[in-house]
Amino acid sequence: MPPVTLSDIQSAKQRIQPYISQTPILHSNLLDNWLGHEILFKAECLQKTGSFKIRGALNMMLKAKEKGTLGTKVVASSSGNHAQAVAYAANELGVKATIYSPQNISKVKAAATQFYGAKLKLCATRKEADEKAQQAAEKEGAVWVPPFNHEDIIAGQGTAVYDALLQIGQVDSVFAPIGGGGLISGSFICSKTLYPDIQVIGAEPLLANDAAESRRTGTIQSLPQQPLTLADGAATLAVGEKTFNYIKQLDDIYEIPEQPIVYWCQWLQHLLKIHLEPTSAMSMAALINWLKVQKKRQKVLVVLSGGNIDQQKMQQIWQQNYLQEIPSLLL
Amino acid sequence: MPPVTLSDIQSAKQRIQPYISQTPILHSNLLDNWLGHEILFKAECLQKTGSFKIRGALNMMLKAKEKGTLGTKVVASSSGNHAQAVAYAANELGVKATIYSPQNISKVKAAATQFYGAKLKLCATRKEADEKAQQAAEKEGAVWVPPFNHEDIIAGQGTAVYDALLQIGQVDSVFAPIGGGGLISGSFICSKTLYPDIQVIGAEPLLANDAAESRRTGTIQSLPQQPLTLADGAATLAVGEKTFNYIKQLDDIYEIPEQPIVYWCQWLQHLLKIHLEPTSAMSMAALINWLKVQKKRQKVLVVLSGGNIDQQKMQQIWQQNYLQEIPSLLL
Repeated sequence: MPPVTLSDIQSAKQRIQPYISQTPILHSNLLDNWLGHEILFKAECLQKTGSFKIRGALNMMLKAKEKGTLGTKVVASSSGNHAQAVAYAANELGVKATIYSPQNISKVKAAATQFYGAKLKLCATRKEADEKAQQAAEKEGAVWVPPFNHEDIIAGQGTAVYDALLQIGQVDSVFAPIGGGGLISGSFICSKTLYPDIQVIGAEPLLANDAAESRRTGTIQSLPQQPLTLADGAATLAVGEKTFNYIKQLDDIYEIPEQPIVYWCQWLQHLLKIHLEPTSAMSMAALINWLKVQKKRQKVLVVLSGGNIDQQKMQQIWQQNYLQEIPSLLL
Repeated sequence: MPPVTLSDIQSAKQRIQPYISQTPILHSNLLDNWLGHEILFKAECLQKTGSFKIRGALNMMLKAKEKGTLGTKVVASSSGNHAQAVAYAANELGVKATIYSPQNISKVKAAATQFYGAKLKLCATRKEADEKAQQAAEKEGAVWVPPFNHEDIIAGQGTAVYDALLQIGQVDSVFAPIGGGGLISGSFICSKTLYPDIQVIGAEPLLANDAAESRRTGTIQSLPQQPLTLADGAATLAVGEKTFNYIKQLDDIYEIPEQPIVYWCQWLQHLLKIHLEPTSAMSMAALINWLKVQKKRQKVLVVLSGGNIDQQKMQQIWQQNYLQEIPSLLL
């Protein structure tokens, strides 16, 4: 397939629009005042199923439907936001979905996935789930909906930033998290095509910095094992060869330690009054590093990728008090 | 002053509209499906300053401005949402504000109050803060903006439910928390005038059940001391004689133990993806008690009053895991 273009993202937007929410752009006067910059947040945590993932899944499935190749069944492997996204999209389009998931999937995510009518099959490991999904696709003629490494997924995820730029106009930079790279790739394509001077910057957990390592070495690097980062949405072991093509071209990738992830998760929940994931807060921590070296006032877009958080993670996020002293670029 | 009418609430809406946000109506398909009812949430946690309190403060100050009695200074006593509301409103209207606050005000609430340009004066106790505010009003000719026991405050707070009913049309019942009683009084007046068959029901912490006690005994009862409830927005020691007039007429008041407050705070943050206060979750716990005895499907409005939460409270809310089993009316 040819590389993804702005036109693919525009087609994706037309295609998925009837099924998704127009999520708001949020901002905080307090935060802008404290930091001296204008920071706008695209709140995909308020998206259907609680994350941007619905955009890619819907785009791929709707495109297959247009081409007459969707059939009656889709499969996917995920224990996170992609599971709910595929389950929801399948339900909307009236096809069956089977989700293969590692058995440590949280009860609440399992319940949501099943509520949307998907069959949930538990596997011993993530690797087994991936293999079973691919086998099922081949054996049963089902459409396999991959989490990130596919043109239609990249184009679908790109609609989040495309939407945001239509809402707010030109910005100086765009920040988004990197897991498998679908969101940052789509964000890169539409931002740079619309505004060539824009900077597109990724955020990755320092504990799961395979994308940054891959960018440094020029070849895709994998994490040796599942990383223990709070930013579970960015804990993918390796990016894909299609997303790496865009990740290589990013203006920068910031590798974020756990403490600033927690810090910004508290502050953004508090200031924006929304329930956002550590993965989303990570992009804000990256932005802070970038703002520290800017000479003039910046207008910035930060993608808040999702809001599905377990109790264990919420407990960890709110263990210490970071709301005592107000944020500043001088710290 | 004559009692508050729907017309006062309509005037208040006209008056304050340019200064406030149109907060959305949220709902959760999952929750509606699990409970078998239609539950709509008015998200005042997304209101300017993070709570509905801005409505009453603005209404009182704008009305005084229309009458030419606003002068150049306002005073208030509060350590909570009312402090930020008065500070914000004063800043918008270009008058000075002094807020008298008990010294245990959280740093983050103090910072927000001061950011809006208010002078913050710390006092040893809540009682001293109240007295100092009243003295300052008399001595300096400033307008004292009380937290609840005033017609203009009641009419202002009533605009939250009035707005919501314009957004969603008739419902079977309305649930709101009771602190000093401003919100529930305004909610009662507009709901019963628009739809006489509607039920208007208050929620109060069992640990701070002075309104329920007052309703039972027919006279205003005060709590002997500051109660240790997580629902700090409803921890007021006593309602006022003006709000009691409406509290007496409520269809019911549910007294909610701490555990269901925490339970619903977790679930509503998770399902609605917003950062809402325990005080807001308390109304949902009351609704559950009410739904258990309903014979047919109900359409219900729940007012989510605010989203200003300290780290200590967030830690308490997320200590135990209530997301393991999905909510049900059979529990």
